[in-house]
Amino acid sequence: MNFITGGVCAAQGFRAGGIHVGVKTHAAWKKDVALIVSDEDCACAAVYTKNAVKAAHIHVDKRHLADGKARAAVINSGNANACAPMGEENAERVCAAAGKALGCRPEDVVVAATGVIGQTLNVAVIEQGMPELCAAAAHTAAGSDAAAHAIMTTDTVKKELAVETVIGGKTVRMGGIAKGSGMIHPNMGTMLCFLTTDCAISSEMIKSALLETVQASFNRISVDGDTSTNDTCCVLANGLAGNPVITEKGPDYDAFVEALRALCVELAKKMASDGEGATHLITCTVTGAGSEQSAETVAKSVIGSALTKAAIFGADANWGRVLCAMGYSGEDFNPDKVDVAFQSQAGSVQVCAKGRGLDFDEDLAKRVLTEHDVTIAITMGEGDSSCTCWGCDLTYEYVKINGDYRT
Amino acid sequence: MNFITGGVCAAQGFRAGGIHVGVKTHAAWKKDVALIVSDEDCACAAVYTKNAVKAAHIHVDKRHLADGKARAAVINSGNANACAPMGEENAERVCAAAGKALGCRPEDVVVAATGVIGQTLNVAVIEQGMPELCAAAAHTAAGSDAAAHAIMTTDTVKKELAVETVIGGKTVRMGGIAKGSGMIHPNMGTMLCFLTTDCAISSEMIKSALLETVQASFNRISVDGDTSTNDTCCVLANGLAGNPVITEKGPDYDAFVEALRALCVELAKKMASDGEGATHLITCTVTGAGSEQSAETVAKSVIGSALTKAAIFGADANWGRVLCAMGYSGEDFNPDKVDVAFQSQAGSVQVCAKGRGLDFDEDLAKRVLTEHDVTIAITMGEGDSSCTCWGCDLTYEYVKINGDYRT
Repeated sequence: MNFITGGVCAAQGFRAGGIHVGVKTHAAWKKDVALIVSDEDCACAAVYTKNAVKAAHIHVDKRHLADGKARAAVINSGNANACAPMGEENAERVCAAAGKALGCRPEDVVVAATGVIGQTLNVAVIEQGMPELCAAAAHTAAGSDAAAHAIMTTDTVKKELAVETVIGGKTVRMGGIAKGSGMIHPNMGTMLCFLTTDCAISSEMIKSALLETVQASFNRISVDGDTSTNDTCCVLANGLAGNPVITEKGPDYDAFVEALRALCVELAKKMASDGEGATHLITCTVTGAGSEQSAETVAKSVIGSALTKAAIFGADANWGRVLCAMGYSGEDFNPDKVDVAFQSQAGSVQVCAKGRGLDFDEDLAKRVLTEHDVTIAITMGEGDSSCTCWGCDLTYEYVKINGDYRT
Repeated sequence: MNFITGGVCAAQGFRAGGIHVGVKTHAAWKKDVALIVSDEDCACAAVYTKNAVKAAHIHVDKRHLADGKARAAVINSGNANACAPMGEENAERVCAAAGKALGCRPEDVVVAATGVIGQTLNVAVIEQGMPELCAAAAHTAAGSDAAAHAIMTTDTVKKELAVETVIGGKTVRMGGIAKGSGMIHPNMGTMLCFLTTDCAISSEMIKSALLETVQASFNRISVDGDTSTNDTCCVLANGLAGNPVITEKGPDYDAFVEALRALCVELAKKMASDGEGATHLITCTVTGAGSEQSAETVAKSVIGSALTKAAIFGADANWGRVLCAMGYSGEDFNPDKVDVAFQSQAGSVQVCAKGRGLDFDEDLAKRVLTEHDVTIAITMGEGDSSCTCWGCDLTYEYVKINGDYRT
């Protein structure tokens, strides 16, 4: 399996594009609607936020994907269409406009939105722009790039990746675009992630693969502990790779999951790294845990701790906050068995052994923590299980961005 | 019941004081050890953090309070004595020094600590300073004031209160000092709170009163979602008021709980208001909930939301974040029944009705949210239960304070 270029257009038979139609009123140069469309019908599965307050598009998509099939996805940024008047009606109007322009059923269009909560979506500008958007969609890397940009809000870099693997003797490609910078604490979905593949696979098997992949990727990152109303992760598979259709678990399914997981883990890390205001990507590795679930709970608690995040921002080896966050995670463990080290490409410094502080080289620790990518390595001494989660630091810029996001 | 002056010395027979002994090495003018001592033996109860990583003093106090009795409490700031070498030995040495200086058993001394985690407590300076500390303790408001200052870390204001009520025909007084500014997300205890009363009450009834009071006060505030390793709330009751001893539930017990609760709610609000870097006290009132527990869960989720906290810092009426935080609280409710308003002494502005955004006066909303004390008023439309929780905004200063707390 290799990483390749091309994003959501890397797989055969997918076009994508993104343009500005006017949902973002304050920045006419910023793309605000993206389209991904397959030349052939796709098996399709999606997972969504577990937030009890769900964006309108999620209710619409659940109806549209009841048959496990789709042809296209339309995603707008600049307005979340959540808690907004006429939310579902407006989401359906987006699908109807896309269906008309693409010549497919509105029910075969998946829709999603991201942006401010609670304001009425300006659906008229999306309807008006739909012919231009469809015309702009291309089978090229540039098309995927435009779509990746069109779904960004406070993101500072686009999140786009693709991989290539062999399944059933055929070359299969898979690509994705994602967005997410704030309100990132995914629970069973993620901010927004759309994945395409030319793999032939049933919608049941995609759903299964997606569930286990999301749990091990997007559900293991956090920017601010706020689980969004809009989290959506969707895979479109058009089967053009020509591999024998994957309809059950086995080596082909495993190869598919391996590729999907590689893609989603890297996209998730890009999201954490581009967390609002972030200056550090924080990786928390927990080993020696009693179970993978336990390791995950502990690691998520550490990357979610405001105090730990602020310490990393200050390159301060304040490991007591790491133990504190482990302690309130809800997991049962013996603190007297815990080792902690801070690591980066500048080196590694152990700061805690068996639950007690060590004398350590503060200068080295400062150098280690000044790097952009920092790892908090925890050994629990409880068992053989492990898990890795990703987050980012808490900075002045996060406060600035979120102190007045709407204006 | 009335609020009065005098703090922990308001009740008869209590002395208090605070001095600098050298635990805080960087600020010789900052008091760092506090003493509260009763002239008579006290019934005593305490509750502690539910963090799995507990400070050493908590293990020591649990042993010392097994008999429900105490005479004195010694509290140091500047070092949490958590995850530190020789933690329990050092905590016992503090008790031994106090017992020697006061002429009581070390087992009748309660000890507590707050400050940096993971560093060895300089117990020698506390031992050396103990005679001076005991000599400084006085039955006066100044004594309580000194103790309240001596337990502060990043706190910017002292937290000290007292109330007077009548129980069993006798005037009973009750007072408390507390500290807490960061790592505040109490779970069954609180950062540090010591309460004194001259009420005659059994240790069993104090424990019961303390548990129900803490749940409705300290457990309903959050500064940063980080449940501390050191949370401790302790009540000392010496019985000098001369009321019939409270040994069971009834009108006297209810009067005691009412006074204790009034005290703890106000101390908790002071803590939230003085949250690290805070510029706003945020009160979240949830009414119309299906149960008090449900209202509490929703209110705590809202005051804990980093995005909501940042919006209040920016005086931005971004109510979508309030609904988002309600939604990920884990409570089951119908978003389409929710109303939200922002309130302060500058006025009230409703922003959401039945789960949908309203057109509202943005200028008025800005004025409302610019006040120091801001209320987020939520009506759920599910039932008749309600709850109030308190938090603070997320500011640049919070990041600054915690980016380099140790130095």
